[in-house]
Amino acid sequence: MNYYGHPITKLIEELAQLPGVGRKTAQRLAFHILQMPKEQAQSLAEAIISAKDNIRYCSVCCTLTDTDPCPICRNEKRTKEMIMVVEDPRDMAAYEKTKQYKGLYHILHGAISPMLGIGPSELKIKELLERVQHYPVEEVILATNPNIEGEATAMYIGKLLKPLGIKVTRIANGVPVGGDLEYVDEVTLSRALEGRREL
Amino acid sequence: MNYYGHPITKLIEELAQLPGVGRKTAQRLAFHILQMPKEQAQSLAEAIISAKDNIRYCSVCCTLTDTDPCPICRNEKRTKEMIMVVEDPRDMAAYEKTKQYKGLYHILHGAISPMLGIGPSELKIKELLERVQHYPVEEVILATNPNIEGEATAMYIGKLLKPLGIKVTRIANGVPVGGDLEYVDEVTLSRALEGRREL
Repeated sequence: MNYYGHPITKLIEELAQLPGVGRKTAQRLAFHILQMPKEQAQSLAEAIISAKDNIRYCSVCCTLTDTDPCPICRNEKRTKEMIMVVEDPRDMAAYEKTKQYKGLYHILHGAISPMLGIGPSELKIKELLERVQHYPVEEVILATNPNIEGEATAMYIGKLLKPLGIKVTRIANGVPVGGDLEYVDEVTLSRALEGRREL
Repeated sequence: MNYYGHPITKLIEELAQLPGVGRKTAQRLAFHILQMPKEQAQSLAEAIISAKDNIRYCSVCCTLTDTDPCPICRNEKRTKEMIMVVEDPRDMAAYEKTKQYKGLYHILHGAISPMLGIGPSELKIKELLERVQHYPVEEVILATNPNIEGEATAMYIGKLLKPLGIKVTRIANGVPVGGDLEYVDEVTLSRALEGRREL
């Protein structure tokens, strides 16, 4: 039923298609937008169009970027011999925030998931293989998510890269810093024990 | 730090200003928008602009509408002698869904809240007073929210309307249908007892 005018209903419907936004949240967002100053609403709409128009894949690492190559691939100070493979640009941003990693990235845009019908060909794996054959890469760090899909993807990529004579590593499993052992699951605890290091 | 290109960062910032949308959610929404088909992103942006451009207050009931008067105020079948005062167009929609109420509405656009610095003059109370003096209104039902702000607003409006000889009522407090008495708070239980009716 249309209890509001058509433009409001239309806006609610559009917003309700965003992930994690149900009908109630979409209503709340729509009414918030209606109360915004006109310039702010305009600015939001323009940001959507502009992001959509100006963002493409980086031809080197496949991240989403407005400049090609992306700022990280272009940065002369980064170690070109090391590539960290992540599922998503957000994972890249998460590692960038640590300020500990100085190599390059490769973004897969997903993980292998038979459940969701995502096979290796849907991911940027072909691009990764081409990349390691054209540039002198010494180490590929597999930093896909520590879940079933991420592990499967890491295994798959590992098998493809090893015959090429490249060092392939996987980020460590273990107890998260600041966590409480009591609340850590058994698998993580076992992995933390296996991966113990001498002090 | 800008880990993504400028258009993405800008979109994340714009989205993060929406209510209930934090930085992480804004990132998730932004990347979802980037993966959308171009037409869908365009359609979302246009819905924002169109809602903002075409929506105004109804000159009778002050709801947000694209036609003036709004469809409910224009509807000849509705009882013109009864006005339900609500805080928000969403509250109006909630009552419309019941299909039980056949009168008109008046939307205050908020409730009196000294904490948020919202006084009576920020609400559409003046418009309500003018309305009841120009149209023959028999009953005003105060359906502001059952919280401190809503109760205060109902009390305030009640005091203004009673001297005009209009019947002023307040929606009932009580246990919600389908609820479990065990989980209902004491005040609601007391109100339900006070408001008991003979079967």
